[in-house]
Amino acid sequence: MSFLKNDTICAIATASGTAAVSMIRMSGKDSHKIALSRFIRKKELTLDTIVANKMYYGEITDLDGKIIDDVMLTFFKAPHSYTGEDSAEIVCHGSPFIQNKILEILIQSGARLAEAGEYTMRAFVNNKMDLTQAEAVADLISSQNEAEHRVAMNQLKGGFSKELQVLRSKLLDLTSLMELELDFSEEDVEFADRTKLNNLIEEASTHINKLTDSFRLGNTIKRGTPVAIVGDANAGKSTLLNALLGEERAIVSDIAGTTRDTIEETLNIGGKTFRFIDTAGIRETEDTIEKIGIERAFKKISEADIILGLLDLNQSSDTYFKSARFIINNVNLLKQKLILIFNKVDLNNEAMLIDTKLIINNLRTSIEKNIERNGGNMIDEYKYSVTGQDCHDIRNLIKYDFISAKNDEHIEKLKKDIAFYGRDLVVGENEVLVTNLRHYEALVKASESLVKVKEGLDFGISTEFVAQDLKEVLYYLGSITGEISSSDVLNSIFGRFCIGK
Amino acid sequence: MSFLKNDTICAIATASGTAAVSMIRMSGKDSHKIALSRFIRKKELTLDTIVANKMYYGEITDLDGKIIDDVMLTFFKAPHSYTGEDSAEIVCHGSPFIQNKILEILIQSGARLAEAGEYTMRAFVNNKMDLTQAEAVADLISSQNEAEHRVAMNQLKGGFSKELQVLRSKLLDLTSLMELELDFSEEDVEFADRTKLNNLIEEASTHINKLTDSFRLGNTIKRGTPVAIVGDANAGKSTLLNALLGEERAIVSDIAGTTRDTIEETLNIGGKTFRFIDTAGIRETEDTIEKIGIERAFKKISEADIILGLLDLNQSSDTYFKSARFIINNVNLLKQKLILIFNKVDLNNEAMLIDTKLIINNLRTSIEKNIERNGGNMIDEYKYSVTGQDCHDIRNLIKYDFISAKNDEHIEKLKKDIAFYGRDLVVGENEVLVTNLRHYEALVKASESLVKVKEGLDFGISTEFVAQDLKEVLYYLGSITGEISSSDVLNSIFGRFCIGK
Repeated sequence: MSFLKNDTICAIATASGTAAVSMIRMSGKDSHKIALSRFIRKKELTLDTIVANKMYYGEITDLDGKIIDDVMLTFFKAPHSYTGEDSAEIVCHGSPFIQNKILEILIQSGARLAEAGEYTMRAFVNNKMDLTQAEAVADLISSQNEAEHRVAMNQLKGGFSKELQVLRSKLLDLTSLMELELDFSEEDVEFADRTKLNNLIEEASTHINKLTDSFRLGNTIKRGTPVAIVGDANAGKSTLLNALLGEERAIVSDIAGTTRDTIEETLNIGGKTFRFIDTAGIRETEDTIEKIGIERAFKKISEADIILGLLDLNQSSDTYFKSARFIINNVNLLKQKLILIFNKVDLNNEAMLIDTKLIINNLRTSIEKNIERNGGNMIDEYKYSVTGQDCHDIRNLIKYDFISAKNDEHIEKLKKDIAFYGRDLVVGENEVLVTNLRHYEALVKASESLVKVKEGLDFGISTEFVAQDLKEVLYYLGSITGEISSSDVLNSIFGRFCIGK
Repeated sequence: MSFLKNDTICAIATASGTAAVSMIRMSGKDSHKIALSRFIRKKELTLDTIVANKMYYGEITDLDGKIIDDVMLTFFKAPHSYTGEDSAEIVCHGSPFIQNKILEILIQSGARLAEAGEYTMRAFVNNKMDLTQAEAVADLISSQNEAEHRVAMNQLKGGFSKELQVLRSKLLDLTSLMELELDFSEEDVEFADRTKLNNLIEEASTHINKLTDSFRLGNTIKRGTPVAIVGDANAGKSTLLNALLGEERAIVSDIAGTTRDTIEETLNIGGKTFRFIDTAGIRETEDTIEKIGIERAFKKISEADIILGLLDLNQSSDTYFKSARFIINNVNLLKQKLILIFNKVDLNNEAMLIDTKLIINNLRTSIEKNIERNGGNMIDEYKYSVTGQDCHDIRNLIKYDFISAKNDEHIEKLKKDIAFYGRDLVVGENEVLVTNLRHYEALVKASESLVKVKEGLDFGISTEFVAQDLKEVLYYLGSITGEISSSDVLNSIFGRFCIGK
């Protein structure tokens, strides 16, 4: 995608398929001329007489003059359009045949098919929005729930850009102070007010950290609450994932250790979005590839908010309780929610005899150690009054489910338990959250450079070098809003858009 | 669906799914008020200041005032709108979440969700179009090729209505003449000019027949060239249909006679639309249900333009050539195109030894008899110069294909042969064709009543009765354009529309 193109692009902007109506968009210097050349209406329209933002009813014809459709045509005049260029919108009947025909006619008349994201890219190039806002457009379109929508909307409205502006102005103050010092460096006078410098760095640092900290929530909002499915190899993790998703997604086989890589799937349960992470089976193994998978599984466990610990009722109770303890030893019960799932009730006639008491008796030590290890306190399980916030009742720390993933039994009850643990993601109307990995990574780099600035000043390193580090901070922040951008970055951002946006 | 409703309806008018933009429509007396109540823009807009057909940029908010999206809002004032009522169009970002949210807000603000076809129904009720035009809207939206599109467009532009108007005015002349006679009947004077009457009836009759005759082409355009797949039970007809469609559609089994009913599927081959009709296997049977299926199969054969005669290479050559002859005996080679398909090449090693000469030697007598029976003439197959249009070269009368439907072998070659025989459906820019079964049936009934009128006059039946028959003719014609319509008919017509149209 070139960023200096001056030609006219066109695309179907509405979803594909048959519907009442559909919209075709055109943008670029010839868009008015092209639209007019194929438009017939009672009272003739010319380039001089068209009124911007007014809907004209008429007919679109092909190059032979045959009527293709009755349409509503609207012209927008630069810079008062989405792209900032002259543009036109044609609303036609929602027949895929007609849509494609009109597109064909526009192309025959001099327009070219827009690439993915090219409309928004032009809006960015023409300063109608910065890069974070352009990215928010894509997020807004793909938003699936209230929270996701709110975050994208705040970002589109420039909330994130404003935060960065505030940060930037602080850093520019810092730069001025430093440059002042640099100008007088030959005179060996330390001009800059060190306290003021340090305070500014402190403020900027706090600000950046607040933003990077918001990424965990932001990422959860955008990608769903992370749920890790862990358990012995062949306990039925992939089958469970399939049962939860209601379709065949993961490869399921009877050979232990089939799922070697992690698979992520998103599912809406009770209005909340969950990101399910299927992991390699956790067991001792000599297989190198499988070992990597298991390591990755442990990492995923630590990143997950909810852990589904899958136990195989087809094994001896000694074996599955051992697995349960192993899982408990690898999670943090104070920060993460654990659901132990006893799978394969279809194969175990005694499953009904397993009660909470039996389970707790088998897991008590592991659970209590977990709480202690993580700095919490247990209460007597039969004492109902709880004093202090971190006193934990052993019966309420873990949820238990008995299912048959294979036969789709009791999956709804399990889903309810998962939904119960799902975060209610509420975003304030003007709350700014970092949801974009690109932004997060740039902020982390900016933060690292800022640490170097601070260290440089503390250790009395030449102001020239410190100024260089400070420039790096500004560079990383500038890359977020697109003040500094490479065509590679832009291509990767806009390439993810749909065509027509 | 009530036809007198005065409330405000709303619907998503664009195709469902994620896209750059999406449109939500509202129509009815409160549509402006409702849209304004949830619309914010820099310069405030009121019911008095809105300009019709102008796009306003602003924000849609929910009932708590939270911004849901940046939108373009357009108002249309009655009667200058699609429905003829006050209406509004909101173009928002193409996120399903946002679309549904806006719809929800409009409903909370007093609109109600439109039923299928309710927009066009309102346009009909408000005399923006007649019933044939309303039906053309649905046809236009679902049109999949040039010819289908052209027919629907001509009908939308009132072409069919005009034909009916001409017809109607002739019949009204007729009625006047008859009524004149009726007025003076007591005086026993035969006033009406009988020759003029007869001429008018003749003209009207020719006109109606021209229209009903166009239905075969119209129906082909709308539903595709009919292709019947026939052959022995278990020759692989369903498998062939699946191979042609590229998906599993028909139930396939190894039990002979599995497909008892006819299945129709539409497929585009080389830009032409074909309607594939899978039929019951043709064989002697005692099964009553299967017998019905076989009878239906014979009927389908007679209605098809192209016949795919499927032969089973897994049987003896005596058997499959016998089947081929049976098929030839049941088609009309002068009117229908036959492709004999030797299936299961995978199971027959000698398939490659079957050449055109061998085939023709086995089928010669049947083919020649077919041509004679249908009034055509054969030419010597080695004589290349053909004199006269109905001299048929035996080698060019039938196409042959060797395939394995099961293994998807040589299906592309077969598709080419089918495409070759497909009609090039060309429709003139203003050509009127009857494509709608409802119209066709009404025309047939009108034609029947017209015959009664003619007979009545010929046999000197009382003018009063003849006038009654004439009223029937007008009634059937009126039912086509909707001058006469019942809510049942309207419900059935508009119920087939998509929501939002």
